Amino acid sequence: MTTRIGVLASGTGTNFVALCDAQARGELAPGEIVTLICNRPGAPVIERAQERGIEAVVIPHRGYPSREAFDQALVDALRERNVEIVVLAGFMRILTAVFVEAFPLRIINLHPALLPSFAGTDGIGDALDYGVKVTGVTVHFIDTGVDTGPIILQEAVKIAEGEGRETLEPRVHAVEHRILPRAVQLVAAGKTRVEGRRVIIEN
Amino acid sequence: MTTRIGVLASGTGTNFVALCDAQARGELAPGEIVTLICNRPGAPVIERAQERGIEAVVIPHRGYPSREAFDQALVDALRERNVEIVVLAGFMRILTAVFVEAFPLRIINLHPALLPSFAGTDGIGDALDYGVKVTGVTVHFIDTGVDTGPIILQEAVKIAEGEGRETLEPRVHAVEHRILPRAVQLVAAGKTRVEGRRVIIEN
Repeated sequence: MTTRIGVLASGTGTNFVALCDAQARGELAPGEIVTLICNRPGAPVIERAQERGIEAVVIPHRGYPSREAFDQALVDALRERNVEIVVLAGFMRILTAVFVEAFPLRIINLHPALLPSFAGTDGIGDALDYGVKVTGVTVHFIDTGVDTGPIILQEAVKIAEGEGRETLEPRVHAVEHRILPRAVQLVAAGKTRVEGRRVIIEN
Repeated sequence: MTTRIGVLASGTGTNFVALCDAQARGELAPGEIVTLICNRPGAPVIERAQERGIEAVVIPHRGYPSREAFDQALVDALRERNVEIVVLAGFMRILTAVFVEAFPLRIINLHPALLPSFAGTDGIGDALDYGVKVTGVTVHFIDTGVDTGPIILQEAVKIAEGEGRETLEPRVHAVEHRILPRAVQLVAAGKTRVEGRRVIIEN
């Protein structure tokens, strides 16, 4: 039995590629990526999917009269494909309750900071501006708040003295590429259990 | 030349003892603890100071008509002793601008979480309730906000699956006892420089 995974992405697709690479190494099983959905026609991630023989579906958000209508189109596309787990891998649209409630505790997001610190659109820049000495990466379930859902995995990244974005960013992304597939595998394998706000990982 | 340090504490004094132990090992130099000020008569930390031959001054906050009057008494006691750096080591009073502005970027505080996450009075409990997988310890300068000043040192502490307070708390305290003396030594040695919100540590 496989667990069918749909990935939503908007851009270059580095985290999508990290998921595909993990799958190729057998590290996503029983998870299986069955579709990529992209809201931006021509985004590089579409070619990344096609190269790997994974269906790429383009659903341009501009074609819909409201956020809710767009989200319903996403839900319909995922349901048609019997997707059980949704992974947001650099998906640059805020999702409404229409989407979030269609896949309760089944939508996985990645954030480039140690939540609850530095929620929002620039986790890396905000951490540097604040002057923290430790930041990191969070993989969490989506709920209807902004970056507030239960946390599946986190990993710390030390910031070196005087370090700037140019060296911190690739180090944060390297951690993303490592822990996102691991979190997806745990959820796909049914090894996560949510108790209140805490995600318990079972062996 | 020594840098004269005053420690403020209210309770058992475990972080005060960690500072004294570091001093005994020569790890605080050029910093030197010259006084302990305690706001609670009979608090165990007073005896910890006396055992080590360090002056213990008791200034009960109940004896003052306002927070500001109490803070002025603290400032006066520290100035009489030519204290240059103040360390808050479990000092359970909120300090007003009267105190903070008397020692700009010269007051060091410890917080049992990775700020800006879980500011406030229960950093460990709030981290557990939120369900983070990584917490830690922050040593920072005090400004007039609550736990908002520039960060000197931080260190991450992983939270194990299903871990509770009884095992996490001693692990967080062990990190406190290690990084508080290190931060105090850096400041005492003039190796920290504040640029905006960032603290740069020079070698």
